[in-house]
Amino acid sequence: MRHTAVLALGGNALTPPDQDGAWERQRANAVPLARAAAALLRAGWRVAISHGNGPQVGALALQQEEAGSGVAAQPLFAVGAMTQGQIGSLLALALDEVCGGGVSVVSVVTHVVVADAPGGAMPTKPIGPFYPRERALELAGERGWAVVDDAGRGWRRVVASPEPLDIVEAGAVRDLVEGGHLVIACGGGGIPVTRREGRLEGVEAVVDKDLAAWRLAVELEAGVLALVTGVDCVCLDHGTPGQRAITEMSVAESDELARAGHFPPGSMGPKVAAARRFVRDGGELAVITSAEHVLEAVEGRHGTRIVAGTGTATASA
Amino acid sequence: MRHTAVLALGGNALTPPDQDGAWERQRANAVPLARAAAALLRAGWRVAISHGNGPQVGALALQQEEAGSGVAAQPLFAVGAMTQGQIGSLLALALDEVCGGGVSVVSVVTHVVVADAPGGAMPTKPIGPFYPRERALELAGERGWAVVDDAGRGWRRVVASPEPLDIVEAGAVRDLVEGGHLVIACGGGGIPVTRREGRLEGVEAVVDKDLAAWRLAVELEAGVLALVTGVDCVCLDHGTPGQRAITEMSVAESDELARAGHFPPGSMGPKVAAARRFVRDGGELAVITSAEHVLEAVEGRHGTRIVAGTGTATASA
Repeated sequence: MRHTAVLALGGNALTPPDQDGAWERQRANAVPLARAAAALLRAGWRVAISHGNGPQVGALALQQEEAGSGVAAQPLFAVGAMTQGQIGSLLALALDEVCGGGVSVVSVVTHVVVADAPGGAMPTKPIGPFYPRERALELAGERGWAVVDDAGRGWRRVVASPEPLDIVEAGAVRDLVEGGHLVIACGGGGIPVTRREGRLEGVEAVVDKDLAAWRLAVELEAGVLALVTGVDCVCLDHGTPGQRAITEMSVAESDELARAGHFPPGSMGPKVAAARRFVRDGGELAVITSAEHVLEAVEGRHGTRIVAGTGTATASA
Repeated sequence: MRHTAVLALGGNALTPPDQDGAWERQRANAVPLARAAAALLRAGWRVAISHGNGPQVGALALQQEEAGSGVAAQPLFAVGAMTQGQIGSLLALALDEVCGGGVSVVSVVTHVVVADAPGGAMPTKPIGPFYPRERALELAGERGWAVVDDAGRGWRRVVASPEPLDIVEAGAVRDLVEGGHLVIACGGGGIPVTRREGRLEGVEAVVDKDLAAWRLAVELEAGVLALVTGVDCVCLDHGTPGQRAITEMSVAESDELARAGHFPPGSMGPKVAAARRFVRDGGELAVITSAEHVLEAVEGRHGTRIVAGTGTATASA
């Protein structure tokens, strides 16, 4: 399915740090994301979408913990499943609107098999609201959270984020994409599960959605993986006077720049890693860009392209 | 797709009134339901499953309302969407276990178009926990809920429950069922939406899952609709010394008995209504039975059969 594009959308694009996650706000924020997918469809691409859920899973986990009514709080992977329903519905409604109702959009509840780490993996994935340092440390004490300073924007809870190995519903998603449906899958990185004695068991974690999108793109044998973010392209020395935009980089170059610390974890790091893995696994093109420029980026006229071959001199495919 | 069976499972079967909805309990309660579907699959049926969400959507709505952290509570239809992710995942994991991993199970986030009632429909659908009468009236005052005595089992919040007219994702579900996937759809009756000026808008309601299963069965041109409940068959004068089991009834008979008040709203009423509508719309057989007896009931050896034709003397198809 070479003419298939997988889009990875951020949960922060639906709920930025300065918003409280009201449904109507998220719905409005979904429109530019839906337009990106619609532009690809109009240009003849088959499209599958994955999305993040950091703010949403954090909010819902908080609501579960704080309720006083004696109804049982659900485990983190089940809360992740809830956000697949919530955001999957919201994106489907936005896509229906933007595509004028003429496209079959379908959100699939998706499980992702992750490596089984006895005792749990290191907490690295920030979820939920931002707190002042003092409040974050207080919550860490009260609730047993791990907390970190998230890229200087404030303190957040962090949870384990194991590697995605396999997508349980890959066959169904593939059939739907081949059948011409626009599919939303691997929401929030997928519901993390591991197989123990023949039984799929939930794992208390949130998988990185860019890495889940990489797995999805590989499973679908997609031609393009587009990692959508708040900026138009990847920059070196981002936010400094010496900032330079990267138009194209090879797998080897991206690897080198990553090792030199150019792509911070939790923001550009996983996007570049997902792009690199996709191209290394035989994908034709990975692009990192903003929602506004997805079609141009997929067509090689915008964003940052990660390609096979030897470097920035690589011609467009 | 004559050899397709649609199963409607109750949300109460996962969380009975005396349980608090802990995930592991719901997961354990899902096993007999999953076994019913697995038995049909082994007998050569294609299967689609819909499920209720009364306890789950009520619990989650409470958790949303009661949280004190300043994250926005989501509207009821979005909370319904969340329960599709939660229960869709839980049932998929139980089915994977029971079917030994050899079956492709997929949960689809499903929207159901409902009639647009200006000012909202009458609240008739009980959701969430049971309360003593005094506490229910207190909550009604505090939170603007409508509350009712739910079949003598306690007081509950009730919400609007409009008629399902159309399933937005019907084409995708049909493609999946035809492709041999076991599909979970229309969870919690489907996410209720209405089309206004070309845009699908959420409706503050919970659709009856038995009626949604009827729509799903019609859309799939299923041969059988099986409405799974806590009892083995429909009874007249249920719970009295004169109680009689119904083995078979025609559409006309079921209509007559319903009008005579034999099937209470919120329990057997919607099941018999869904069964009657399915057969009236050309469905071959509708059965009402317990999870243990689904295959036997579908094969005409158990439960209550609602059939076309003239009455209890109707031979098995």
